[in-house]
Amino acid sequence: MKKLINNVDDVLTESLAGFGRAHADLVDISTDPKLVTRKGGGKKGKVALISGGGSGHEPMHAGFVGMGMLDAACPGEVFTSPTPDQMLAAAEAVDGGAGILWIVKNYAGDVMNFEMAGEMYDGPTETVLTNDDVAVESSLHSQGRRGVAATVIVEKIVGAAAERGDDLAACKALGDRVNAASGTMGIALTSCTVPAAGSPTFEIGESEMELGVGIHGEPGRKRVDLMKADEIAEALIQAICESIAPSGDDDLLLLVNGMGGTPLMELYLLYNSAMNVAGERGLKIARSLVGNYCTSLEMAGASITLTKLDTEMAELWDAPVHTAALRWKA
Amino acid sequence: MKKLINNVDDVLTESLAGFGRAHADLVDISTDPKLVTRKGGGKKGKVALISGGGSGHEPMHAGFVGMGMLDAACPGEVFTSPTPDQMLAAAEAVDGGAGILWIVKNYAGDVMNFEMAGEMYDGPTETVLTNDDVAVESSLHSQGRRGVAATVIVEKIVGAAAERGDDLAACKALGDRVNAASGTMGIALTSCTVPAAGSPTFEIGESEMELGVGIHGEPGRKRVDLMKADEIAEALIQAICESIAPSGDDDLLLLVNGMGGTPLMELYLLYNSAMNVAGERGLKIARSLVGNYCTSLEMAGASITLTKLDTEMAELWDAPVHTAALRWKA
Repeated sequence: MKKLINNVDDVLTESLAGFGRAHADLVDISTDPKLVTRKGGGKKGKVALISGGGSGHEPMHAGFVGMGMLDAACPGEVFTSPTPDQMLAAAEAVDGGAGILWIVKNYAGDVMNFEMAGEMYDGPTETVLTNDDVAVESSLHSQGRRGVAATVIVEKIVGAAAERGDDLAACKALGDRVNAASGTMGIALTSCTVPAAGSPTFEIGESEMELGVGIHGEPGRKRVDLMKADEIAEALIQAICESIAPSGDDDLLLLVNGMGGTPLMELYLLYNSAMNVAGERGLKIARSLVGNYCTSLEMAGASITLTKLDTEMAELWDAPVHTAALRWKA
Repeated sequence: MKKLINNVDDVLTESLAGFGRAHADLVDISTDPKLVTRKGGGKKGKVALISGGGSGHEPMHAGFVGMGMLDAACPGEVFTSPTPDQMLAAAEAVDGGAGILWIVKNYAGDVMNFEMAGEMYDGPTETVLTNDDVAVESSLHSQGRRGVAATVIVEKIVGAAAERGDDLAACKALGDRVNAASGTMGIALTSCTVPAAGSPTFEIGESEMELGVGIHGEPGRKRVDLMKADEIAEALIQAICESIAPSGDDDLLLLVNGMGGTPLMELYLLYNSAMNVAGERGLKIARSLVGNYCTSLEMAGASITLTKLDTEMAELWDAPVHTAALRWKA
């Protein structure tokens, strides 16, 4: 196993410490329980957005804590759900008196633990469950579709709504709307290696790829021969369109997301393929994002997400944001 | 070879097209000759900053074209110098009447071609040659030290100076000053594969790493057994300090740069190690940047850069920038 680490047991603690030191202007870090909170804590009168999940998907979620996005992130061990006590501590740290919105990717462990935290918490809470992965209907770690890269889009758009003062019910409804308007599917060229496991999560041949892979290396739709970027874009967008059925009038957000080990040069090439496919289908791409946002350690591969933006969602996407991994107009 | 591409011959063209489409608000793209220019072309009265080099180091340089940084980037084929006609066309496209500053990484092909472009160009030009890589005194592709990740810092700081109206001589002097105040060294855990070659640039064993690797996979100081992140940070910072000799009074910029295939989780862990080493040495880290900025395709590995910032350099680093890969206060 080739990784830039010291000891397997200290990976999360040390990485989190580094994140906190690199972004001390934006966040506060707690190591027991492990938490990343927005600098200065809760903002009075604002709905507090809290997300979290297993580590290994960086910059998700800690990289999205800051103005216009999350108030806190709860990082679990690599590919392992955080615990209810982390979530409870996060809520207490950033509660602004207007309620807590949990943003949860649909995996059994995450769902259960956020639910427990909600029961333990003394105050109003709501949950937005993301399940944008159109690859499979159920999976190794989830009942129903998995939550993947569209979670970034939910966090950005709802984060902007909370920042302008929307109340808890409105934030919850908006998050559900963004999630329902989104579809994602990904592919993997290589596996990833969980530090504590020490060996690749799955085996894959030199001329194979996994179509519809999950962000923990879970199986997707099928193992296929290597495809060209144009073919990958076509297959992913076809699958997404079957789910969200965009019309030519819809303003779409296109996210081409790297899995961690894919160079930017390839991500822009895949984006170009996706734009060609969108053009052939008469789809209108109104906003774009290309880069590593919801990753799987050092996996080589990528996912494509489409979100149908209504006018309000587009405005909130464009609103100022200042986090470690997404920043504009601030 | 596992890459998200269509055909080997089209990698650069298609990736560049994708970049242009994803950032149409920031840049214009030309495909013949290949160029990325700041949207709207030259700004009257402003020194124009032009960089370039082989592709495969994304986001360097195209990702740094925009307000407060570069006016144009000339991408060569992967790990291959761009040609003088690209550079000449770039100069003609962005000339604002205040002269052209070429920012050139020290590799023989780049140096020769930028020199030719300067001779062909009908107007005042100056060159800042970056040679921050302290690993080796000469290399496969360079006489003298190689130019690597500090080139990003030169482009940011001199870009801000040009934006505020500094003249050509001042920009040239400032660029030289930033370069001289900087040192970088990197390590590789894996090789990278140039698409046109189809096989890894070098062989490396499962328990080995290359200490002082070049950004094209050129040999560094030595092949060593895998080191821990703390040991890597110590070795790299030791080598850099031997070159730039920082004192405890210096405000340092610390850049932990990924080589393309290393997950953010490991880069923040290495940053934490580097901060510990800096602390033990009584060094003052005043600014930080962590991420993939000067890459080598999908190579796993990282480099550390330290720059001694004077007051002016720190102010210019903090000044607004709006490019695809670096953006703040804008």
